[in-house]
Amino acid sequence: MTVAPERLSTISSDVVNPAVSLSCRYCGATYALSPTHVCIECFAPLEIAYDESALRRVTRASIEAGPTNLWRYVGLLPAGHDPARRVSLGAGWTPLRPATRLAAELGMRTLWVKDDSANPTHSFKDRVVSVALSAAREHGYTTVACASTGNLAQSVAAHAASAGLRSVVLIPHDLEDGKTVSTAVYGGTLVAIDGNYDDVNRLCSELSGEYEWAFVNVNVRPFYAEGSKTLGYEVAEQLGWRLPEQVVVPIASGSLLTKIDKAFGELGRLGLVEPTPYRVFGAQAQGCNPVAAAFARGVDTVSPMKPSTIAKSLSIGNPADGPYALDVARRTSGAITDVTDPEIVEGIRLLARTEGVFGETAGGVTVACLRRLLREGLLDPDAETVIFNTGDGLKTLDPLVSTGKPTATIRPSLAAFETAGLGD
Amino acid sequence: MTVAPERLSTISSDVVNPAVSLSCRYCGATYALSPTHVCIECFAPLEIAYDESALRRVTRASIEAGPTNLWRYVGLLPAGHDPARRVSLGAGWTPLRPATRLAAELGMRTLWVKDDSANPTHSFKDRVVSVALSAAREHGYTTVACASTGNLAQSVAAHAASAGLRSVVLIPHDLEDGKTVSTAVYGGTLVAIDGNYDDVNRLCSELSGEYEWAFVNVNVRPFYAEGSKTLGYEVAEQLGWRLPEQVVVPIASGSLLTKIDKAFGELGRLGLVEPTPYRVFGAQAQGCNPVAAAFARGVDTVSPMKPSTIAKSLSIGNPADGPYALDVARRTSGAITDVTDPEIVEGIRLLARTEGVFGETAGGVTVACLRRLLREGLLDPDAETVIFNTGDGLKTLDPLVSTGKPTATIRPSLAAFETAGLGD
Repeated sequence: MTVAPERLSTISSDVVNPAVSLSCRYCGATYALSPTHVCIECFAPLEIAYDESALRRVTRASIEAGPTNLWRYVGLLPAGHDPARRVSLGAGWTPLRPATRLAAELGMRTLWVKDDSANPTHSFKDRVVSVALSAAREHGYTTVACASTGNLAQSVAAHAASAGLRSVVLIPHDLEDGKTVSTAVYGGTLVAIDGNYDDVNRLCSELSGEYEWAFVNVNVRPFYAEGSKTLGYEVAEQLGWRLPEQVVVPIASGSLLTKIDKAFGELGRLGLVEPTPYRVFGAQAQGCNPVAAAFARGVDTVSPMKPSTIAKSLSIGNPADGPYALDVARRTSGAITDVTDPEIVEGIRLLARTEGVFGETAGGVTVACLRRLLREGLLDPDAETVIFNTGDGLKTLDPLVSTGKPTATIRPSLAAFETAGLGD
Repeated sequence: MTVAPERLSTISSDVVNPAVSLSCRYCGATYALSPTHVCIECFAPLEIAYDESALRRVTRASIEAGPTNLWRYVGLLPAGHDPARRVSLGAGWTPLRPATRLAAELGMRTLWVKDDSANPTHSFKDRVVSVALSAAREHGYTTVACASTGNLAQSVAAHAASAGLRSVVLIPHDLEDGKTVSTAVYGGTLVAIDGNYDDVNRLCSELSGEYEWAFVNVNVRPFYAEGSKTLGYEVAEQLGWRLPEQVVVPIASGSLLTKIDKAFGELGRLGLVEPTPYRVFGAQAQGCNPVAAAFARGVDTVSPMKPSTIAKSLSIGNPADGPYALDVARRTSGAITDVTDPEIVEGIRLLARTEGVFGETAGGVTVACLRRLLREGLLDPDAETVIFNTGDGLKTLDPLVSTGKPTATIRPSLAAFETAGLGD
């Protein structure tokens, strides 16, 4: 609905949808392209299958002629091909910032921050929600729903409002005022559940069996997850159509990491970039590190755990895509590591102090893991590296209150200022 | 420092600075182009004077070849001409959103929201700070300073951090934790003053006489203020190089409104747009309405008042550019109006509910004033209108806590969900 107007004239409405079916990740069974997410044969997750010849019609020029948002990649996505039905607040095409001061402090040669706090509701969730809600509308849904404790809630409520869709957002009853307010303001149905996040999730799954609604991370999940590919496409295009040598990606469900890898692979296969080697590193909080723990133990199975960390947006104790993330890290000679809560706070402050970018706790996890990977010699300081800041610090202020104090508190006088040693 | 890398190759570094001197707004005395802001003849404010022939070298094509941030207009600005010394987090080129659902609700034909919450620290202050700090660096300063209660503080601290400049930010001691945290995180000097905002401002003025620092809204103010012109340029370019018929702009100091008018005038004079007529409307909170009150009384002088409103970012009781804003509104057949605090909250919710855009209180003032102007027949519902959302709702959550509650709080069961009437 809100395509950047300056580019309206250049958007072609005849881009075909390259998605043709859903296929089971495990047994390969195929299904019609529709809002469903589990294989009825083997209960494994479904994913979008594309017509390779349709994907091959996408060129650098066709992308560059598109809008300055994620819809420039619509030819590689499973929804949103008719601009008139697209649900969009303009997510994507966020800055890839050269992090020269952070690189210097860490002793690295070339470092970039892909800064998704610049999205409309200030997290990377706007990408997946925009694709999911476009798919929902194309498949005839008028109500969209989700369970969330934060970024997803605000993004679903905002996008639904802009498109005139009804939203039903389920949250735990004890959520901070700030997160409740910034979701309620859009006027959708916001349901507080007297229970913890697991209770909220369980109810959401039950509801998906009862109501003909688009549940963004349940029945629409195959479409939703593909939205994350655009982060990988953008990095490559913003580097001048080439792949970085190393990336560091935060892990919650593991979906984002695997989709960035998928995007890099697609670009190489389709001839849009040289298929140069790259290494994928994953970042977790020690208080919720099931994937990092499996990596450390050298095993393929991810053991669920009960999260306890300030990085709430990464607090998925039983990550659906954990095994796939492990596979990507091992296949690309990367690694998956974790950091403590104090290291996360220090990571947030380090990024802010050197680059002027205030990331949320997930961004702090990524910066702190980058530092740990360097210290342990797992990541090459001389190889070009991209780290992902997936959300805005304004959303997770609480962990910073104890360290975010003024330098000094003084009386309003020049003498007091000088006595406090605040001058030159 | 953080020019969007995808456009680095197209930035010309040989753009000349069109600014040649400072001139007194009152007596016309001229001064060398330097960080100073008051005429020593008559104590009136100084403003940038340009070489008209240099301005005329700017073309639509030269702008369109620039980066997708405010620096595409560097040929019309007084600082930042050497990209290597520019201080930038990529502010500007924010979305101009077609507000079709809001327009429908208000009975308007064509309405746009220029959404400056998309800036790096999520307010329009990033524009003026980026220009001011670029000027500061060009004039040899290594320390930048300001007094602020919010948006300006975060923006100065962030931009200074990214550029490796020292920042000294003065705030009242009783500021909310959130605002303190989101400024302190960048690691500059943050000084809490045991007094009110007037005390902070007074100390800041005293310091500017003592230290060789760039005070962004004192000695660097002529450069700083010019940054606001870019909001006007962008609206015209995003409309396809033409002017809107009506604009509604929030008023704090009045500078933003006058600079948007200046931008439209410049574009017409330089032949970059057809100089079609436009009307400028100003928006204030009733709790701080000195300019609206003067407009209503039909007088030229603005009487100072003590602010008391939830719209803190507009709470300037003695607005420096108030008389100039009055002049613009009268000259263009516009008006200046005001709204109550409950209307401001309703304005925030209306914009969020219809367009998925969560504005700060200043945005609520603008939407509510738009509604009032329509109701009173002062603004034409059939003329193309642009309203300015100057900041993000995440920065001013407090006024929404009482209305931002969940629709319902229920036990985690399907039966409870249905009993509460939350289904279809």
